[in-house]
Amino acid sequence: MKELRVGMIGYGFMGRAHSNAFRRVNNFFDLDRQVVMKAACGRNEAKVRDFAARWGYESVETDWRKLVERDDIDLVDICAPNDQHLDMAIAAAKAGKMILCEKPLARDGKEGEKMVKAVEKAGVPNMVWYNYRRIPAVTLAKQLIDQGRLGKIFHYRAKFLQDWTISPDLPQGGAGLWRLDAKVAGSGVTGDLLAHCIDTALWLNGSIAKVNAMTETFVKERKHNLTGKVEKVGIDDACAFLARFGNGSLATFESTRYARGHKALYTLEINGEHASIAWDLHDLHRLQYFDHRDEGRLRGWRSIHVTDSDHPYMDKWWVPGLAIGYEHSFVHQVADFLEGVAQGRAVAPTFRDALETQYVCDAVLKSARTDKWEKVKAVK
Amino acid sequence: MKELRVGMIGYGFMGRAHSNAFRRVNNFFDLDRQVVMKAACGRNEAKVRDFAARWGYESVETDWRKLVERDDIDLVDICAPNDQHLDMAIAAAKAGKMILCEKPLARDGKEGEKMVKAVEKAGVPNMVWYNYRRIPAVTLAKQLIDQGRLGKIFHYRAKFLQDWTISPDLPQGGAGLWRLDAKVAGSGVTGDLLAHCIDTALWLNGSIAKVNAMTETFVKERKHNLTGKVEKVGIDDACAFLARFGNGSLATFESTRYARGHKALYTLEINGEHASIAWDLHDLHRLQYFDHRDEGRLRGWRSIHVTDSDHPYMDKWWVPGLAIGYEHSFVHQVADFLEGVAQGRAVAPTFRDALETQYVCDAVLKSARTDKWEKVKAVK
Amino acid sequence: MKELRVGMIGYGFMGRAHSNAFRRVNNFFDLDRQVVMKAACGRNEAKVRDFAARWGYESVETDWRKLVERDDIDLVDICAPNDQHLDMAIAAAKAGKMILCEKPLARDGKEGEKMVKAVEKAGVPNMVWYNYRRIPAVTLAKQLIDQGRLGKIFHYRAKFLQDWTISPDLPQGGAGLWRLDAKVAGSGVTGDLLAHCIDTALWLNGSIAKVNAMTETFVKERKHNLTGKVEKVGIDDACAFLARFGNGSLATFESTRYARGHKALYTLEINGEHASIAWDLHDLHRLQYFDHRDEGRLRGWRSIHVTDSDHPYMDKWWVPGLAIGYEHSFVHQVADFLEGVAQGRAVAPTFRDALETQYVCDAVLKSARTDKWEKVKAVK
Amino acid sequence: MKELRVGMIGYGFMGRAHSNAFRRVNNFFDLDRQVVMKAACGRNEAKVRDFAARWGYESVETDWRKLVERDDIDLVDICAPNDQHLDMAIAAAKAGKMILCEKPLARDGKEGEKMVKAVEKAGVPNMVWYNYRRIPAVTLAKQLIDQGRLGKIFHYRAKFLQDWTISPDLPQGGAGLWRLDAKVAGSGVTGDLLAHCIDTALWLNGSIAKVNAMTETFVKERKHNLTGKVEKVGIDDACAFLARFGNGSLATFESTRYARGHKALYTLEINGEHASIAWDLHDLHRLQYFDHRDEGRLRGWRSIHVTDSDHPYMDKWWVPGLAIGYEHSFVHQVADFLEGVAQGRAVAPTFRDALETQYVCDAVLKSARTDKWEKVKAVK
Repeated sequence: MKELRVGMIGYGFMGRAHSNAFRRVNNFFDLDRQVVMKAACGRNEAKVRDFAARWGYESVETDWRKLVERDDIDLVDICAPNDQHLDMAIAAAKAGKMILCEKPLARDGKEGEKMVKAVEKAGVPNMVWYNYRRIPAVTLAKQLIDQGRLGKIFHYRAKFLQDWTISPDLPQGGAGLWRLDAKVAGSGVTGDLLAHCIDTALWLNGSIAKVNAMTETFVKERKHNLTGKVEKVGIDDACAFLARFGNGSLATFESTRYARGHKALYTLEINGEHASIAWDLHDLHRLQYFDHRDEGRLRGWRSIHVTDSDHPYMDKWWVPGLAIGYEHSFVHQVADFLEGVAQGRAVAPTFRDALETQYVCDAVLKSARTDKWEKVKAVK
Repeated sequence: MKELRVGMIGYGFMGRAHSNAFRRVNNFFDLDRQVVMKAACGRNEAKVRDFAARWGYESVETDWRKLVERDDIDLVDICAPNDQHLDMAIAAAKAGKMILCEKPLARDGKEGEKMVKAVEKAGVPNMVWYNYRRIPAVTLAKQLIDQGRLGKIFHYRAKFLQDWTISPDLPQGGAGLWRLDAKVAGSGVTGDLLAHCIDTALWLNGSIAKVNAMTETFVKERKHNLTGKVEKVGIDDACAFLARFGNGSLATFESTRYARGHKALYTLEINGEHASIAWDLHDLHRLQYFDHRDEGRLRGWRSIHVTDSDHPYMDKWWVPGLAIGYEHSFVHQVADFLEGVAQGRAVAPTFRDALETQYVCDAVLKSARTDKWEKVKAVK
Repeated sequence: MKELRVGMIGYGFMGRAHSNAFRRVNNFFDLDRQVVMKAACGRNEAKVRDFAARWGYESVETDWRKLVERDDIDLVDICAPNDQHLDMAIAAAKAGKMILCEKPLARDGKEGEKMVKAVEKAGVPNMVWYNYRRIPAVTLAKQLIDQGRLGKIFHYRAKFLQDWTISPDLPQGGAGLWRLDAKVAGSGVTGDLLAHCIDTALWLNGSIAKVNAMTETFVKERKHNLTGKVEKVGIDDACAFLARFGNGSLATFESTRYARGHKALYTLEINGEHASIAWDLHDLHRLQYFDHRDEGRLRGWRSIHVTDSDHPYMDKWWVPGLAIGYEHSFVHQVADFLEGVAQGRAVAPTFRDALETQYVCDAVLKSARTDKWEKVKAVK
Repeated sequence: MKELRVGMIGYGFMGRAHSNAFRRVNNFFDLDRQVVMKAACGRNEAKVRDFAARWGYESVETDWRKLVERDDIDLVDICAPNDQHLDMAIAAAKAGKMILCEKPLARDGKEGEKMVKAVEKAGVPNMVWYNYRRIPAVTLAKQLIDQGRLGKIFHYRAKFLQDWTISPDLPQGGAGLWRLDAKVAGSGVTGDLLAHCIDTALWLNGSIAKVNAMTETFVKERKHNLTGKVEKVGIDDACAFLARFGNGSLATFESTRYARGHKALYTLEINGEHASIAWDLHDLHRLQYFDHRDEGRLRGWRSIHVTDSDHPYMDKWWVPGLAIGYEHSFVHQVADFLEGVAQGRAVAPTFRDALETQYVCDAVLKSARTDKWEKVKAVK
């Protein structure tokens, strides 16, 4: 079996989630590629050594440019903070590496465009880690929609609610908290959480034509971990927007880190002429499905426990009734990517797919500033 | 429209629930009988006068024997404690009154037999207030079973869990607390709560052949409200039993007043070859339904919001989505009873139907004493 | 006990719901006023006679102006379609009657202003039937907020989802369908459904400063029942809007009659600094409550079964665990109103309170036309 | 770091689940032992080679006796069908290996006693894979009980419901279906499913004093995969029993493979004086908790999303809100076992702990035959 040698940049939360996916994929999926954990890269040598030892990476680098240049690396996985995606991706593309990039693709559409251009010019397989597409219940939703079961779509609504930044004592910046630093992250909940909601929405329901948004920063100043000073908070703590899809359906999107009681409650619901679908991340193994074509007296929302062998990806895991978790979506993504590599075809979401999400985010943030409806730039 | 003149004995919790049903039934149901609230009866004249004024009874009595004899009463409703059902029912039958009797029919099967004999000899319409049959979701369950949708039944399970007697400081006996007094009530949770579960079970799943039970009295002594002394508690605080139905299905039943967190959680579930059904009183407007004949990938428990006009009784009330409550089951029962009266046919559960429940209770209590399987006496 | 003589205009869905409330209130609540069902009014004499007979109204009228002038009527209840509220309310006020008016108060703010002026000039007790405030779970939510348990409020979100107008074959106009006729109703889901959401929101979370809305009419033409012709549909089938409350919190509101699978799903959620609350009409007897002050490991959303005697209004009904339904909110409203009458104080929501909802609706509909944020007119 | 070299016997469903646990444990847990996947053993050489390649075992064996004798194996994991546990465990103990044995420990108590004797005589660390103890929500339940939060326990109830054997066309015996073959499995749902319920119950609520059971075999004959003939089915398809715990609490247990709609619905509920707990395997990441000491009006069942870093084991995985699945319980078990090995202490459930479950199963099956209450043999 042909090897596929991975070089990982970053060793934080996502570095762990991706490493786990790489290590597990060949245990559960029959593939033409054998993943080899070749090298891990991070600026802090002691930490990256620990990380490599724990996950079985054969070697370490402290300079990502070196990693990108190494001949024994086939694939570069970018798990560094958002402000580094651009340079890393361009360099990796130039070096002819396959690239997996953590979401969001970039801090904005402009950066994203350069990255798309780079990977397409280099002709390297590329993908962005919008992992929620591959939660089996979400994939099942996609299948049902593609079969036309919902009929004409009237409504789409999605939320991503968290509550971890309510305390004004929480600092911003630095390890683990760069998501609160606008310069590094690009934006707050829009790029971090709504980007997930938007990616899924584009996939399930097609393009978004225009948006109308409001944002808020509830805590105006926080201590910055790197400078040590109290600094103005630049990110959006909350963002809600109205949208019109190209197919005529109406949508509401909302995200916040100030929704007490919700840890990572990504919910989506789609209402069609014939059927509706709902899902939430807190019970990710269930798909809610309502079909108006059921016999009248017996209509009801079905709670589908998506753990059967005829459910997406579930033939690879355990037996009916036994749930998988969050991390498995990453394994599925690696499996699909490797299958695409073996077959020489692109696997969504590519950088180009992810650019569309970036454009929606740009329009959302612009609308929040202009207080007007803003059209979403089309991906050419 | 012909009048049907009601005489009510008792003015406690059930006196209220039944009075409400009598007062409302003609507002919502088209019937050939107009209920007239003729007389209310209770030993405490001041209290019964208040009660009559509140509910619109035209007159009061303090001696139930007088009420039973009155010429202007067509129907006697027995809402007195269990130990008085026998005498009242026999007297009312002799007086040629229609009789509605609060459940359980009696303290035991022997009393029940006499009551059945009395009403059948007198040829008077009679019914027992096992109201849960007429919660729309439960009635819908009955319809589905009768249509054969479940196929062969494998399992039946029911529970009725409460938590209101956990404190040892709660006294027994007297107004509101006679249910803790074995002499008055006949038994504890068996006659009070399991009787409901058993009535529904017999209706939905046919006869029970044999049972094997255990009971427990957690608090052994309580102050008696009438004697003022601490006395031994004679009731069963909890009762669980295994059962075999005549149709071969296996069952578990359980009831307790020591299940912290449950106020009146009557739950039932039936598993058939093709489909299963579940319901609980805490969300009484919903029926859970699983149909294995649904397409494989989309199978799931459906939560049916039983509020549509094609659901049992629901065309009489509001519009889809708007729930009714506990008390409506009594209105439905009066409506069905009146329809039966107009048409000259018996409406279940009659005294005879309720006698079967009594026999099951007898077998359960006997088994708890003998520690053996006990056969249920057949209603001839 | 002093009588309060009711004259009811209208005998449709709401005529029934209100009549039921009037008939039941004295059975369950101890009040200084005895409701007397004096007269029912409707244009179709045969139908109004039937209605009066069913509900116990002593007399009928076919001209509402006569009803309003009758000396033996203390209170006029307006259950006619929205376009008649204005004239009826002004005439009733001039005649010195107490007035209960079905929601929405009027077709728009201008009509509402005239009505407020009329009742305040006449000095008559007045109230609007925003009944959901008096669902016990919602009232409990209000109590918790007023006690400051939630702390600073960050987010409010409400939806009212239905699915009954999806078929293009459904006609508009006339009995039962006037809600689809913009001239009669004033608007579509905004005045019909969002008005409920807005009323509750103003009550729970204070004034709304500005809104940004989109509306849609999915089915553009429908046959009109009165004219017999296919006519343009003037109402909004769906409406979603962003809002900023005066207290700084962000909100999303949405309503539609095209959400397959939802019959009358009014949901609301409020996220505060310390606690969050959620409720939905499909399970109206439950309040969801999350308190961050609970011990860390044991934090979770509590599903409060609002049926205990220390829950709002619930001491009047049955025992813990036994749910009431939709209609009881109307009984509660009558009870509170009568108590206010006896004590000589206004009871919310008065016409003036309801005018604020009207202003929000006006701003919402305007924003949907202008595609801009619109300020909500303040109630002076 | 010291190595711990694993030899795995069996490569079926459990062989996969355990291998996954061994491979992952060092990625997520900080331990003094590094697991080495040394050898996999199975009778079919081609299959075991595939299995070894997939999971990274360094070598294979086709004779388990050879595996057990190998010097380079520290730990033998027994994942063979139940009828082989005895011989394998005794041989492994004699060879001085640590032993992990799949549940149930044996086909009955007698076999179990021999196994306990063997490992205790050899003094080797030993454990049985009752993995559900280490679902974080279940472990949290144990912590709450041990802290005394529930107070005196009144009730315990557990069910394990499946629906995969309803079809009479399903054969018995051989690979994947040996659980239907009484000779191999020892019993049906009692040893397979109820053993899990019993193990958890003993852990959470102490010893069971006596039981009263009924069993049923719904499909009496099935084709046997190995003999090719239609043979009598010897297993129990369903089993329900009443029980009394040593602490005085009452219990009901039930298991079946004929509960349409349930895939692997292991549920448990415990009612104590002060608080109650409920959990189910279909939503394994949630613990339901009711505390009567909460303020009266705000009491409700809390749905605890057991994904926070202060929840058992959850600091090892992702971030709050992101669920883990079924398989993680095995990882936790390996982690705890290795910690015990490093510290030289036994980790529950040991063979001796599992013997108690075996005794309960024996009493259950005996009671089903005798139709009487049967005492549970005490583990000396």
